[in-house]
Amino acid sequence: MHAFIERLYPICRSITGDGVRRTLSAISERLPLDVVEVPTGTPAFDWEVPREWNIRDAWIADDTGRRVVDFRQSNLHVVGYSVPVNRKMSLEELRPHLHTLPDRPDVTPFRTSYFHEGWGFCLPDRRLRELPDGEYQVVIDSSLTNGHLTYGEVVLEGESEEEFLVSTHVCHPSLGNDNLSGIAVATWLAGAISQLPRRRFTYRFLFVPGLIGPIVWLSRNEERVGRIRHGLVLACIGDAGHPTYKRTRRANADIDRAFEHVLRDSGQEYRITDFTPFGYDERQFNSPGFDLPVGLLMRSPHGEYPEYHTSADDLSIVRPESLADSLAKVLSVVDVLEHDRRYVNLSPKGEPQLGRRGLYRTIGGGGFRDLEPALLWVLNLSDGTSSLLDVAERSGLPFGAVREAALALSDVGLLVETTDR
Amino acid sequence: MHAFIERLYPICRSITGDGVRRTLSAISERLPLDVVEVPTGTPAFDWEVPREWNIRDAWIADDTGRRVVDFRQSNLHVVGYSVPVNRKMSLEELRPHLHTLPDRPDVTPFRTSYFHEGWGFCLPDRRLRELPDGEYQVVIDSSLTNGHLTYGEVVLEGESEEEFLVSTHVCHPSLGNDNLSGIAVATWLAGAISQLPRRRFTYRFLFVPGLIGPIVWLSRNEERVGRIRHGLVLACIGDAGHPTYKRTRRANADIDRAFEHVLRDSGQEYRITDFTPFGYDERQFNSPGFDLPVGLLMRSPHGEYPEYHTSADDLSIVRPESLADSLAKVLSVVDVLEHDRRYVNLSPKGEPQLGRRGLYRTIGGGGFRDLEPALLWVLNLSDGTSSLLDVAERSGLPFGAVREAALALSDVGLLVETTDR
Amino acid sequence: MHAFIERLYPICRSITGDGVRRTLSAISERLPLDVVEVPTGTPAFDWEVPREWNIRDAWIADDTGRRVVDFRQSNLHVVGYSVPVNRKMSLEELRPHLHTLPDRPDVTPFRTSYFHEGWGFCLPDRRLRELPDGEYQVVIDSSLTNGHLTYGEVVLEGESEEEFLVSTHVCHPSLGNDNLSGIAVATWLAGAISQLPRRRFTYRFLFVPGLIGPIVWLSRNEERVGRIRHGLVLACIGDAGHPTYKRTRRANADIDRAFEHVLRDSGQEYRITDFTPFGYDERQFNSPGFDLPVGLLMRSPHGEYPEYHTSADDLSIVRPESLADSLAKVLSVVDVLEHDRRYVNLSPKGEPQLGRRGLYRTIGGGGFRDLEPALLWVLNLSDGTSSLLDVAERSGLPFGAVREAALALSDVGLLVETTDR
Repeated sequence: MHAFIERLYPICRSITGDGVRRTLSAISERLPLDVVEVPTGTPAFDWEVPREWNIRDAWIADDTGRRVVDFRQSNLHVVGYSVPVNRKMSLEELRPHLHTLPDRPDVTPFRTSYFHEGWGFCLPDRRLRELPDGEYQVVIDSSLTNGHLTYGEVVLEGESEEEFLVSTHVCHPSLGNDNLSGIAVATWLAGAISQLPRRRFTYRFLFVPGLIGPIVWLSRNEERVGRIRHGLVLACIGDAGHPTYKRTRRANADIDRAFEHVLRDSGQEYRITDFTPFGYDERQFNSPGFDLPVGLLMRSPHGEYPEYHTSADDLSIVRPESLADSLAKVLSVVDVLEHDRRYVNLSPKGEPQLGRRGLYRTIGGGGFRDLEPALLWVLNLSDGTSSLLDVAERSGLPFGAVREAALALSDVGLLVETTDR
Repeated sequence: MHAFIERLYPICRSITGDGVRRTLSAISERLPLDVVEVPTGTPAFDWEVPREWNIRDAWIADDTGRRVVDFRQSNLHVVGYSVPVNRKMSLEELRPHLHTLPDRPDVTPFRTSYFHEGWGFCLPDRRLRELPDGEYQVVIDSSLTNGHLTYGEVVLEGESEEEFLVSTHVCHPSLGNDNLSGIAVATWLAGAISQLPRRRFTYRFLFVPGLIGPIVWLSRNEERVGRIRHGLVLACIGDAGHPTYKRTRRANADIDRAFEHVLRDSGQEYRITDFTPFGYDERQFNSPGFDLPVGLLMRSPHGEYPEYHTSADDLSIVRPESLADSLAKVLSVVDVLEHDRRYVNLSPKGEPQLGRRGLYRTIGGGGFRDLEPALLWVLNLSDGTSSLLDVAERSGLPFGAVREAALALSDVGLLVETTDR
Repeated sequence: MHAFIERLYPICRSITGDGVRRTLSAISERLPLDVVEVPTGTPAFDWEVPREWNIRDAWIADDTGRRVVDFRQSNLHVVGYSVPVNRKMSLEELRPHLHTLPDRPDVTPFRTSYFHEGWGFCLPDRRLRELPDGEYQVVIDSSLTNGHLTYGEVVLEGESEEEFLVSTHVCHPSLGNDNLSGIAVATWLAGAISQLPRRRFTYRFLFVPGLIGPIVWLSRNEERVGRIRHGLVLACIGDAGHPTYKRTRRANADIDRAFEHVLRDSGQEYRITDFTPFGYDERQFNSPGFDLPVGLLMRSPHGEYPEYHTSADDLSIVRPESLADSLAKVLSVVDVLEHDRRYVNLSPKGEPQLGRRGLYRTIGGGGFRDLEPALLWVLNLSDGTSSLLDVAERSGLPFGAVREAALALSDVGLLVETTDR
């Protein structure tokens, strides 16, 4: 995953344009990706698809012709969606178009102007302070034209039409954790799920520009939205922080409960936070007109790690082991939700005789062995109202042990799955 | 307010009589007060209006004629509702009629005998211990006759017939915090509310004798009681303690939630306690036959400050800044309840485009500005089930910011108020 | 109770056989016990009544004929339900049949083989390590034949057919706390309840072998089970630990709330734990096919005191004062449940005038006296939905005071019991 991120890192992405297309093309080498092109001007609820933005070069040159700010050094130097410029200006005229972080003078901030026509440059505050007064040549060789918004979609069909949605944004230029980490984990996650021998749910992966992307997708897929049973946004999941899961607006959706179980059971540090209407694309899925059960997995929450939205969010802060751990956590949640069923105990009056079925120790008096606690919990709570995740929550046992117990009891005919409500 | 308290302090109030009338007369200089006179013997649920009590003078004189206990020095020296007495008695005969606080030997307790014919004197224990044996002349020049129970009522009409009830007791003689503080704050509160440009609720202020007063009022206003949407009793709110709010019997009435929000948001120390059927007149409003949403605002809870119901509860423990703070807190609660509405987001699918409506920053990537978090919270939760107070509670934002956001969104047509359930 | 335990201690009990009969016979000297004999082979849900086991003697003798392990020294030396054996064996052949506790080398464990044909001996690990290699004579003079499972039942009829079930297991051989303590307390409890002047509930006491006993009883009494309103299993309640109450599967049954109240109100240390499907016979009563409100009272939880299921669980760890305290706690719970009723305040509008009914102090201003807080709480909450236990919980007052207040208010006609829902 880290190598994949290194390869994608130099591309200048935005919410539209060829950077997104090149990124999706790299993903499509690994996944059966549908690339969808939505024309400029297409309405999407309160929005419409903006013009397409592309950029070839941009710089600020001093009177000797030396580039003092140069897009070729870092695509972060240009405010995203800057309109074309080619002018001579004094430093004073230029200053309102220059964005820096005075309290972090060595890094370049990441700024955009998606839905407001404008232009600008971003640079380290220290470099700005060193610029002498004088005339500067300012060039942004960009285009903002009718074109398309581009996104990618992978569907892995399962036994049910009910869907598990995974969404990640693909609109950030040379930033590592935000969100090449999300792109990489989503790509590898789709690969792993495509290899599962059985899938209960249909999995849908979205690689979309932030904000406008999910809004466009939702507007084109309203009739499908009711099928989404679980959902997850992946963002900023490669840094050294511990996992942070942000709940859905509903707060007690199955995805919330599954993440809470998996994280608690991991024995690692973790954080679970309540829903807020800020953040990443969970905002759109959790808007009141949809209220979909879509959570968010991060490591250090966006805005809380110092490199966030600056040039310091580079390849060095993305850790292979964090990527691997994030992927593993999501796969554990997938495992829980794939196998969370409700069962009915067919011998519910008193305990059934587990010993003669080979499921219980033969010598009594000396305490439990192996799966015995899980067997007794599953039998006791399987009255058709509790799912295996309910059993795991109430018993404090790992979901895996509860599931194994349920399978063993099913094998000997003591348990049967139910879908009645 | 403190000057008003100083003026009322010397008056000898009781649950009936001219002390109440003089107090109401002072209030009526500031407010359009209806003074209601209810004749002795009028039934009120399980009670009836008692005889009216008035007192001119009272003393205990030693054999030299010197007054050793003197009503003229403090009206607390006479047990409230004492029947007339004029006898010579030995100290031994007199002793069962003398009330002191042995563990606080320098203060005079406050005692009453409202519903049981009797008489007595209250004095510092130290003074009692200094009284020599001998004969004493005991005089209470009081009258207990058919007359009236007197209370005051102010109604400030609002747009709705739904009422906000504020009640305070006016039956305590020379005690400062209990309850001249309540009388003063209620008077100033009515004044402030009468100046509001709009009132959603009709405000009703009761200045009533404790216990029997609200019972008499309730018995005369049963048909009105269903209109009471919020209610508050004010008592002991001038001392140096921090605000203490006591919940209604329902525990989660809007008034409870509004006080919890205002106190938490104040950043000051405060206390919130559960309902108990003791205390002040909230007992009557919260009786099971009415179960009205009436809370209680105090500072140091009655019975928990050492001066309570003694001569030490004098003008010195009532602080102007505490009176002002208590008034401000109630006005903040009024503000919350006046403006707590439910709204519906008219663009509920995904986020609406705030930028083109001038409600969002134009340069992205650098974090929130001003009202943006409140705008997003209001949009996200406005599905018709959540009120602005719900939004403030869930978001942790101040009610004022939430309300301001709702107004801004209504102004641009993104939000509309709903009264549907 | 301790003397009774001493008398029962030497008997070799198991889940069937004469040891149980002798134990029940001793109980029947104190209680009108029905002794029920259920034949071998009788079906009971997933089980059937096993063959009856009796034992006369057992030993392991070395080649000099000396008994190195001897049933006559302790009945714990033989694995319960061992089949007859009479063989010469090498120590190596014998070893798989010998049970010890290597980490507690001086005590003999308690082991059984109820539902799996086998045999074995239990001994201190230190003694096993001292046994020289060589030939041993191994004798178990037991019988496993068609016979009966025996249990005892006492019914104390009450005004209602609704039942309060108390169950305790009688199948452990020479172990003191587990469960002669339970047998003794249940016996004395039945004695005390039989002396009550009135009983609201019908009390049913079961003295049954563990696991199979309640299953057999439930299978023979299915039509009666719906009458069980409260239930309690007594086990390990004589040791020096503080009381531990384990909740029912429902978690908020009246028995749960009554125990929580009694234990909290005791001022002693105590522990309340959630239901688990392990433990004693509460497992069977709380199985999903019955889900009966049956809790468990212990002192040190089984498995958590070091003497558990070993020869160290002898008469010395059973304390007379713990037995007495356990009995007192259960009787307090019985008292709560016998008297927990819902009442309606007949004067619900405002407070009624308690003074003229002799229930309130005549001099006001000086704080509460005696029962006054309880009177006000009962009046305030008696709207027909709250029971006296609800009042005790919400007020924090002892149930006894709440009940006394309710009786006093009923006596003066202010309160009437209701059974409406």
